[in-house]
Amino acid sequence: MAGAMDTLVRLERTIAERRSASPQESYVAKLHDRGLPVIARKLGEEGVEAVVAGLSGDRAELTAEAADLLFHLLVLLGARDVPLADVLAELDRRQGVSGLAEKAARKED
Amino acid sequence: MAGAMDTLVRLERTIAERRSASPQESYVAKLHDRGLPVIARKLGEEGVEAVVAGLSGDRAELTAEAADLLFHLLVLLGARDVPLADVLAELDRRQGVSGLAEKAARKED
Amino acid sequence: MAGAMDTLVRLERTIAERRSASPQESYVAKLHDRGLPVIARKLGEEGVEAVVAGLSGDRAELTAEAADLLFHLLVLLGARDVPLADVLAELDRRQGVSGLAEKAARKED
Amino acid sequence: MAGAMDTLVRLERTIAERRSASPQESYVAKLHDRGLPVIARKLGEEGVEAVVAGLSGDRAELTAEAADLLFHLLVLLGARDVPLADVLAELDRRQGVSGLAEKAARKED
Repeated sequence: MAGAMDTLVRLERTIAERRSASPQESYVAKLHDRGLPVIARKLGEEGVEAVVAGLSGDRAELTAEAADLLFHLLVLLGARDVPLADVLAELDRRQGVSGLAEKAARKED
Repeated sequence: MAGAMDTLVRLERTIAERRSASPQESYVAKLHDRGLPVIARKLGEEGVEAVVAGLSGDRAELTAEAADLLFHLLVLLGARDVPLADVLAELDRRQGVSGLAEKAARKED
Repeated sequence: MAGAMDTLVRLERTIAERRSASPQESYVAKLHDRGLPVIARKLGEEGVEAVVAGLSGDRAELTAEAADLLFHLLVLLGARDVPLADVLAELDRRQGVSGLAEKAARKED
Repeated sequence: MAGAMDTLVRLERTIAERRSASPQESYVAKLHDRGLPVIARKLGEEGVEAVVAGLSGDRAELTAEAADLLFHLLVLLGARDVPLADVLAELDRRQGVSGLAEKAARKED
């Protein structure tokens, strides 16, 4: 499990390395070459695909779409120089709030 | 960093525990009470918010929206009984593909 | 202008006619052939593209994305047998609410 | 039907008028007061809600979500000074393409 949990850290590093590759050789480099709006758009599209897979797909489809979503989230974070560690720290901070107060701590939907 | 990387594993467990709480006391329980379409809708909305923060927000906003997106992705995965470990294994599998083949391995956009 | 306003009515009719065409010849038929989740997914993706064009694109891009969004909305409505006239009647009903009460009549965001 | 088809033209005009109202009295004015990213975000969220209603809701829900989507699309177009007539003209232009060429004329998904 510890190995599996390194996945996102390794993926973040790989994405950072690939940014400077040739757009012909690397999907990450191609996305960066096309610019931030394309990177953001891809994340949004993967979000929609995860929604549809969550409602209409089987578990394998949802697994694949969730992986796509995580991948493109890391690409967007990298493009904006936001470390994944900051996002995880924010989640840790929220989890520190006591369970009973969970509802109050969440923004209302 | 190892501690930070446990964040998602702990969050997945916390979300699983809260599902059976009272919807009055737990945001997770409230989402489950409202059903899968609401859970999926929330994920999609967080995806949109991450897109907008990625294009128009500062890094703190993007950090917060990325945290929201990860949280609601784990809620949807839990609701469909997809372990986070399966999603990470899928990402590991894709990373195993050699760097030069990265582009070919990605679906075309 | 009256001519321009017939656009959506004609488009709705065209989409209904094309549904029974060959998926090789018609994009609408191909979407129907692939099923409701694909139709819904396309609408969501066009929504994301309109968001990104609204924030980062020029007016020509936003115009094109808005056209894509309307087209795929009509495809989804047709696939669920919801007449465009019903959607317009709902908008008329809301507009009937007096201007001063506009805010109260809208759901809070 | 002709009356119903004026709906969007009247709604576009109403939205343009309300922009200069007080944010306390008008939802449109409040959206403009909050800025383009909020307007774009609302459109994206309505897109997601239409997707979910298309897959999981009844026809009344889809009708209401489609109305929300059209409303917020007009707000975004107005905020970027794109006339609805331009979007309809673009749809007319595309419909002018012959039926057999429909597939080729559409971008591949």
